[in-house]
Amino acid sequence: MGNTDAAYMAGVEVAHRVPVPTPRPFLDIFCSNLKETFFPDDPFRQFKQEKGGRRAIRALQYFFPIFEWAPNYTFNFFRADLVAGITIASLAIPQGISYAKLANLPPILGLYSSFVPPLVYAMMGSSKDLAVGTVAVASLLLASMLGKTVSAKEEPALYLHLAFTATFFAGVLQASLGLLRLGFIVDFLSHSTIVGFMGGAATVVCLQQLKGILGLEHFTTNTDLVSVLESVFSQVHQWRWESVVLGCGFLSFLLTTRILSKRGSLFFWLSAAAPLTSVILGSLVVYLSHAETHGVDVIGHLTKGLNPPSLTKLTLSPPHMLVALKTGMVTGIIALAEGIAVGRSFAMFKNYHIDGNKEMIAFGAMNVAGSLTSCYLTTGPFSRSAVNYNAGCKTAVSNVVMALAVMITLLFLTPLFHYTPLVVLSSIIISAMLGLIDYEAAFHLWKVDKIDFCVCIGAYLGVVFGSVEIGLVTAVMVSILRVLLFIARPRMTMLGNIPNSMAYRRMDQYPGAQSIPGVLVLGIDAPIYFANANYLRERISRWINEEEDRLRVNGKTSLHYVILDMGAVSSIDTSGISMMKETKKALERRELQLVLANPGSEVMKKLDSSKVLETIGHDWIFLTVGEAVGACKFILHTVKTSGNLMENGGVMGLDSHV
Amino acid sequence: MGNTDAAYMAGVEVAHRVPVPTPRPFLDIFCSNLKETFFPDDPFRQFKQEKGGRRAIRALQYFFPIFEWAPNYTFNFFRADLVAGITIASLAIPQGISYAKLANLPPILGLYSSFVPPLVYAMMGSSKDLAVGTVAVASLLLASMLGKTVSAKEEPALYLHLAFTATFFAGVLQASLGLLRLGFIVDFLSHSTIVGFMGGAATVVCLQQLKGILGLEHFTTNTDLVSVLESVFSQVHQWRWESVVLGCGFLSFLLTTRILSKRGSLFFWLSAAAPLTSVILGSLVVYLSHAETHGVDVIGHLTKGLNPPSLTKLTLSPPHMLVALKTGMVTGIIALAEGIAVGRSFAMFKNYHIDGNKEMIAFGAMNVAGSLTSCYLTTGPFSRSAVNYNAGCKTAVSNVVMALAVMITLLFLTPLFHYTPLVVLSSIIISAMLGLIDYEAAFHLWKVDKIDFCVCIGAYLGVVFGSVEIGLVTAVMVSILRVLLFIARPRMTMLGNIPNSMAYRRMDQYPGAQSIPGVLVLGIDAPIYFANANYLRERISRWINEEEDRLRVNGKTSLHYVILDMGAVSSIDTSGISMMKETKKALERRELQLVLANPGSEVMKKLDSSKVLETIGHDWIFLTVGEAVGACKFILHTVKTSGNLMENGGVMGLDSHV
Repeated sequence: MGNTDAAYMAGVEVAHRVPVPTPRPFLDIFCSNLKETFFPDDPFRQFKQEKGGRRAIRALQYFFPIFEWAPNYTFNFFRADLVAGITIASLAIPQGISYAKLANLPPILGLYSSFVPPLVYAMMGSSKDLAVGTVAVASLLLASMLGKTVSAKEEPALYLHLAFTATFFAGVLQASLGLLRLGFIVDFLSHSTIVGFMGGAATVVCLQQLKGILGLEHFTTNTDLVSVLESVFSQVHQWRWESVVLGCGFLSFLLTTRILSKRGSLFFWLSAAAPLTSVILGSLVVYLSHAETHGVDVIGHLTKGLNPPSLTKLTLSPPHMLVALKTGMVTGIIALAEGIAVGRSFAMFKNYHIDGNKEMIAFGAMNVAGSLTSCYLTTGPFSRSAVNYNAGCKTAVSNVVMALAVMITLLFLTPLFHYTPLVVLSSIIISAMLGLIDYEAAFHLWKVDKIDFCVCIGAYLGVVFGSVEIGLVTAVMVSILRVLLFIARPRMTMLGNIPNSMAYRRMDQYPGAQSIPGVLVLGIDAPIYFANANYLRERISRWINEEEDRLRVNGKTSLHYVILDMGAVSSIDTSGISMMKETKKALERRELQLVLANPGSEVMKKLDSSKVLETIGHDWIFLTVGEAVGACKFILHTVKTSGNLMENGGVMGLDSHV
Repeated sequence: MGNTDAAYMAGVEVAHRVPVPTPRPFLDIFCSNLKETFFPDDPFRQFKQEKGGRRAIRALQYFFPIFEWAPNYTFNFFRADLVAGITIASLAIPQGISYAKLANLPPILGLYSSFVPPLVYAMMGSSKDLAVGTVAVASLLLASMLGKTVSAKEEPALYLHLAFTATFFAGVLQASLGLLRLGFIVDFLSHSTIVGFMGGAATVVCLQQLKGILGLEHFTTNTDLVSVLESVFSQVHQWRWESVVLGCGFLSFLLTTRILSKRGSLFFWLSAAAPLTSVILGSLVVYLSHAETHGVDVIGHLTKGLNPPSLTKLTLSPPHMLVALKTGMVTGIIALAEGIAVGRSFAMFKNYHIDGNKEMIAFGAMNVAGSLTSCYLTTGPFSRSAVNYNAGCKTAVSNVVMALAVMITLLFLTPLFHYTPLVVLSSIIISAMLGLIDYEAAFHLWKVDKIDFCVCIGAYLGVVFGSVEIGLVTAVMVSILRVLLFIARPRMTMLGNIPNSMAYRRMDQYPGAQSIPGVLVLGIDAPIYFANANYLRERISRWINEEEDRLRVNGKTSLHYVILDMGAVSSIDTSGISMMKETKKALERRELQLVLANPGSEVMKKLDSSKVLETIGHDWIFLTVGEAVGACKFILHTVKTSGNLMENGGVMGLDSHV
């Protein structure tokens, strides 16, 4: 026996027992799970150390970060913010008008929406670089969802009220998600979904601009590629050359400055000022040439004055409320996803942290306030925030500057936009949208992860050939299906010993890994759940079949032990527990011993509480695969020298040696 | 240097490199993934070794297992099957009639459905113990789903046609799922869902029987508890005492035999024969006492003769087709889930294997054949299969015997059922249903897994207080939500060294595990996906904050290394890759070094193809946590003796020692 002992002790230094976790009170577990699920970032950490009044101030600072950074605000910061604010205002005014037209809303709403919401965000938002405003995709979505029930042309008042109501619901939803700490819902819109969806939406928005560029009067209400091209080419004779010339001219000007902007800081300022320059130039051209009488549509009259209140315009009774509710939910989530993603990206560049749930509360408050002051859905558009960042903004004060600039425009300068041709607005939209079609990101997805690429393309094609909603639903479904498929079909691989180590690793990953005669080591790479329990049971039996076939062909010793490496099985449910029990029985019938290595605490707890631990035998559970293999080898060796395996009492004899 | 070398070499014997997998052709990966997803059980294995004619025979045997077992069929088997077949026929006849009444269909359909489908299943099914027939839950579901559009009383012909059409679609769906190898969809109905759902459905079915027991003429068409109790107690004066006495009498007889049946084999036969005995006794009582004129409803006339063809009765044009399609899909899946679960359970007892996809084809074929021969939806009911098993059946021949017994009944004995009182049928249903309310299983779920218990109770309450569909949808949603929540909030734990070993394990699971000064080891217990990438990034930063706080309080050395144990990260997507990159950057800003231990092949491949591997540095990736810690310790030690950490060139200096 001395010899085998030595052989065994060389393989396994000390056998460690895997403990069954001591039971904790149910409420205790429940609370800690609740905390991990909803408060993973531990937002109360900063309050814990404070007391009384200081704690109230902390709470105020939590919801209104302006009180945190305002005391340290310097004149240098203000100079930077002033420049950035004026720059984004010059972008916000033409873009605001354009996007309001895209949403089939009065153009003035675009200006209103760049006044109140940025002020609210400046107080409540935690991003230093986000520039608040309306976005093309949400505007288009609003138009297409509300447009199905109410025609913007025939019932403009009702349509307007529904737009306010939808904005109100979007705000309430956003704030509630933040307050209820459900921000992770936004994470289910993966990066690849957003790339595809944004690209598709940008394509669709560009296609819609063909109406303006070509000077068409009638246009399809559908947004898909086929309908739009059909509509465009069936009216070839209605195309207005004046409009086309103006449009193409401004578009090439905008695109040129856009491309040049990457060359240096001078070009950046040129590109940032280009939209406003286009508007001024376009208006001058029309005013001087009287092109508005030659088929070039202009904005026309814009009421002077600040945002009128719109509380009484909210439609809070069915059936129209339901349309507004649905529209608000969808556009609210989309706007949130864009805003949070933009905020996070710039925070990463500048190395500060953004609290997703807090941002959601800020977005929600800003939209609720907006819906009461004649604004429609706003968020943090990527293009405007990028300009803000590049123009050197330091804090959210740049948003305040922008709001003040827009206020001055609203009070005094609206008549200047009377002659602005719509075709210029179309050019501005197209040039902004082209930047959203991120084909490089799509290529990167293809290179790294084919399924993510499929999700992306699915979203793109869904939006372009179906509708914005179809594309979004497709992409989310594919993403979730991917997760479910991962759970339903986890990897299970054969492990082998890495030479000169105690480690056991996947044999397909490490070509040098060696299998152990008589022992089959399998690694399960996922939690065992109802969705995969049957699969895993079948797959284990297939691995054993294949291994036995292989051994038979090679004329080697037969199989005696099946070791399951449970290291990656982080969780198990009752179906999984039944599966373990059935596997144990099935292996017993084949005269194979089931051995578990490295089960986690949840697995041990549930094996114990379901009594399956007794069936498997606590002695057959090891800390590492190495120790399990060592024990198996030891018994095999003992049997070879002393006789029968089954009568040896399994690993029981082993305990006395340790 | 000799000293540190020795110290290092003692800790880590040899540092192993984690290889980047060699790229495989896309089609190759795609095909192997496809195989793992749809053919995990390798069904072609048995064909591979055969050639030509033998292969055709194998294929025939695959789809018609009868050709596999029939050649070995013996007289002893037949004797056992004959007894079992007659036993289940005595159960099938009253149950069939009862369930057809439950589905608001002519009672004779219950007999038809016990004739053709069992014959088809006997040829195609692979279970030896399944007894085919209609089931209460699917019958009730059929009635409630079809009843919403077509009234069974006012348009009986249309209702009947829709029932056939729904059965046809259910069969087509079942067969397609099997042929397309999508059997795993059924796995998404977890065991806990089924326990809750079946319990709820059984409760609802029992409640419906109050109509029969109390002899009521009017009854609510809703199935929820509140409506039924309201309906029952609003008509207290219409209760018929004759009916109540008969019903309670037979119910106590049935329940007594049921309880006694567990006592021994004699009582088992008594219990198996009890339903038919009740029918005969009940009919005799009514015939002799003329109770049918005193408010005791009877079955009445049943047409003699075998199943008439019903091909021409299928409704394949909208709008009614759509109702039938929806009903067929839902009832088909439910029936499949019950049948497969029953088949698997008994196969486990007797130690043979059931191929889920093959079973689905058999169920599908049996229902398509049934829909053409005036049968409605059949599956393998638990109660009847249990009786079949206990009566000692050997093969599917017991189903053939049952079918022949039903055939004889259809041809000659239908007049005998003229006086059978409906109240006896209600008693039979109630006594069968009470066995489906599996409170012990629910208690077991509570003990082992609280979330599974919630799923179960959710399904139960949904069915009892809402409707069968609501309960089902609730349970499936909760199950899927659980999976998604697991993905969205994976466990991340701090690992420590188990004394006297190289293993690193969760410190909350192993109280003896020791942390390493200056090194934080974190284990990630799930694949890194878009749904959890943000969470994990925030959680890592919180772990570091907490660890640094702890070190500061204790006045210990500061943190230098963060080791992520990637052993359980079986998969990663592009969001996960970005998260790794951002984490690396964030740690760099905090002057911490990111170290990876044991990444899988997919992680390595994607880190490589996205160039993030270069950012992290291949030298900072180790085979085991132990080796990673060893390397970190070595550098820390070198720095202590030689000076600055950052100028030391990190682990680069280490390579030369290995």
